[in-house]
Amino acid sequence: MMRSDVKHFICEIEDGIATVRLDRPERKNPLTFDSYAELRDWFRDLAYADDVDVVIFGSNGGNFSSGGDVHEIIGPLTKMNMKELLQFTRMTGDLVKAMVNCGKPIVAAVDGVCAGAGAIISMASDLRLATAETKTAFLFTRVGLAGCDMGACAILPRIIGQTRAAEMLYTGRAMTGEEGERWGYFNRLVTSDTLEDEAREMAKKIQAGPNFAHMMTKTMLAQEWSMSIEQAIEAEAQAQAICMQTGDFERAYKAFVAKERPVFEGN
Amino acid sequence: MMRSDVKHFICEIEDGIATVRLDRPERKNPLTFDSYAELRDWFRDLAYADDVDVVIFGSNGGNFSSGGDVHEIIGPLTKMNMKELLQFTRMTGDLVKAMVNCGKPIVAAVDGVCAGAGAIISMASDLRLATAETKTAFLFTRVGLAGCDMGACAILPRIIGQTRAAEMLYTGRAMTGEEGERWGYFNRLVTSDTLEDEAREMAKKIQAGPNFAHMMTKTMLAQEWSMSIEQAIEAEAQAQAICMQTGDFERAYKAFVAKERPVFEGN
Amino acid sequence: MMRSDVKHFICEIEDGIATVRLDRPERKNPLTFDSYAELRDWFRDLAYADDVDVVIFGSNGGNFSSGGDVHEIIGPLTKMNMKELLQFTRMTGDLVKAMVNCGKPIVAAVDGVCAGAGAIISMASDLRLATAETKTAFLFTRVGLAGCDMGACAILPRIIGQTRAAEMLYTGRAMTGEEGERWGYFNRLVTSDTLEDEAREMAKKIQAGPNFAHMMTKTMLAQEWSMSIEQAIEAEAQAQAICMQTGDFERAYKAFVAKERPVFEGN
Repeated sequence: MMRSDVKHFICEIEDGIATVRLDRPERKNPLTFDSYAELRDWFRDLAYADDVDVVIFGSNGGNFSSGGDVHEIIGPLTKMNMKELLQFTRMTGDLVKAMVNCGKPIVAAVDGVCAGAGAIISMASDLRLATAETKTAFLFTRVGLAGCDMGACAILPRIIGQTRAAEMLYTGRAMTGEEGERWGYFNRLVTSDTLEDEAREMAKKIQAGPNFAHMMTKTMLAQEWSMSIEQAIEAEAQAQAICMQTGDFERAYKAFVAKERPVFEGN
Repeated sequence: MMRSDVKHFICEIEDGIATVRLDRPERKNPLTFDSYAELRDWFRDLAYADDVDVVIFGSNGGNFSSGGDVHEIIGPLTKMNMKELLQFTRMTGDLVKAMVNCGKPIVAAVDGVCAGAGAIISMASDLRLATAETKTAFLFTRVGLAGCDMGACAILPRIIGQTRAAEMLYTGRAMTGEEGERWGYFNRLVTSDTLEDEAREMAKKIQAGPNFAHMMTKTMLAQEWSMSIEQAIEAEAQAQAICMQTGDFERAYKAFVAKERPVFEGN
Repeated sequence: MMRSDVKHFICEIEDGIATVRLDRPERKNPLTFDSYAELRDWFRDLAYADDVDVVIFGSNGGNFSSGGDVHEIIGPLTKMNMKELLQFTRMTGDLVKAMVNCGKPIVAAVDGVCAGAGAIISMASDLRLATAETKTAFLFTRVGLAGCDMGACAILPRIIGQTRAAEMLYTGRAMTGEEGERWGYFNRLVTSDTLEDEAREMAKKIQAGPNFAHMMTKTMLAQEWSMSIEQAIEAEAQAQAICMQTGDFERAYKAFVAKERPVFEGN
């Protein structure tokens, strides 16, 4: 059973849908060493959980996240030696890996500020809803760092294309909601007051599908990244053959024959 | 010589342009075990054919294809063992491989329903024209399966981006013609009554080009998929050097000097 | 110190921004064997230069470049043997490699004709401004060659998607400025008379950032191309840890605490 009694972020689990969000809305939900680590552990555990099918990574108080806290993270980092720095950058990278490998689709519901590591968390989600007002900024360059943070130079170009990604990473400027939708970063724009409901609606729609197969889709979308076409096709032949031995495949067929809607059980 | 006397789909060859389309328009052109296998074999043979330069994969009766037949394919699949299932998923994957490796540009002319394996066939084509009314749905999730079918998790993200692909694969919802054009899936939208002519026009335009070089373009667009930039540049230096020894290259130069239009011969 | 006394193209260096452009505007700035080689050498040297932070690849006389000169390049090529041809295609490929590996962001300012190898040079730049009137044509197919020239089959699909790239490469037709902006090839369209200023503005904005970190962003945007997600995340953990030991990172932090704008020094 996935625990929702976390300390450094907020987590609610209801009917198989977990909603997580960062805390401290008065400061636009910055990340800290503790919340990074706890999120990483939580998403790692999720890979083995059966009681959560879909995750919503939500906003809080009108903002998604302002990223790594300047006082609690950036200050200390400027005093670390290389071993400690690498420990930190690997921990943040491990959060993205844990999100990618958790086996459950993640829907980000992005409002307001979505910056730095916050932007990365939205990027590492599978689907994204946002408001027109949101500002998504990969602003590492503004704090003297490179755009290659937590996988951004690999993942962002595959979402919005190499050239738009380059602009975001070199300038650190905010991508507007409208740009994000037009560029394929956001699946859809909604209003701020419907954001939560729309994200929940989308999560439910996905949850109603075959969750074992969804896990396989998520796995393969990440896994085939650096495969040749021939390798990817063989990998999918194997992955789909596995899914064809699930009960959900048979349930779908029987429902179709009976002219009913299939009810999937995730196995 | 490419044969057009096929049994399980329709094939017409005229002036070096082959038009193939699925059969049984009254059921929106579903695929069967037989049509999968015969299409695979036909596209495999195409790699060695010199009398076909371009392929149009057309619609029939206002629809492209409804995908794998529920009664003739999905039913039997639910009763197969793993060995048989893998045999099937490899056969369908082999169709995509055969299309990718056939050496001739494929123009899909997509109208109406374009679903499941039908959507995959459109995806595995090189260029796509469509009508505004077409509905392209990677609906594997609706039959209890994963989105990783016949290469979709690798190929679709490279066409429409990772996030839009994820939505299509997780939800199975139909992509509209307008979305498809906006997202880079369709090269252009045309009306239903001009679709065939426009596809033929596009095929002719490509055919008028240097067909040996087109084969090389197709080969390299697939081949460089998982190469580093450095590897891709070296691979292209070799591939283009080969093309520079064709008569077509010299024909183009001589035509330019004579202020004429080059007539290419494909060698 | 980067030299600006080049012979076969134009180069001005001012305040750490180098502006290069092809010569012979009366012929729309074609490339020659000499300009290819000198550009390659110049960009190779740039990797070790500390006095240039950003490069603008500009237009000249209202045009970017008409590509390889028909009389000075294509003619001689039709008479070469395979060893010589490969020598040529490797030299042109080496120009792209040198641009990719130079460590400095390149902003292309594209007006008018941008064709063949000229289109490739714009493609190999990191960011692109253009006018609505520009015509960018990967027209290799028109001279009897394949679209796989200087990395186009690998790089172009990552910018505008596989299907749009395929159309450009098979047909050789010109992409309009409007299409280029919509497809993510151009970052922004501007008017012809403001193009130079806007490119300079963009270059200055990037230059004001942390240039050592920019070099790392550029390196990783190219390096992670064919990595798996896991490899990319580890590679970024290492790259960013290096950047966290720069003075620029500390400068940014101190400026933030002092509520000032950081002044970066590129180390």
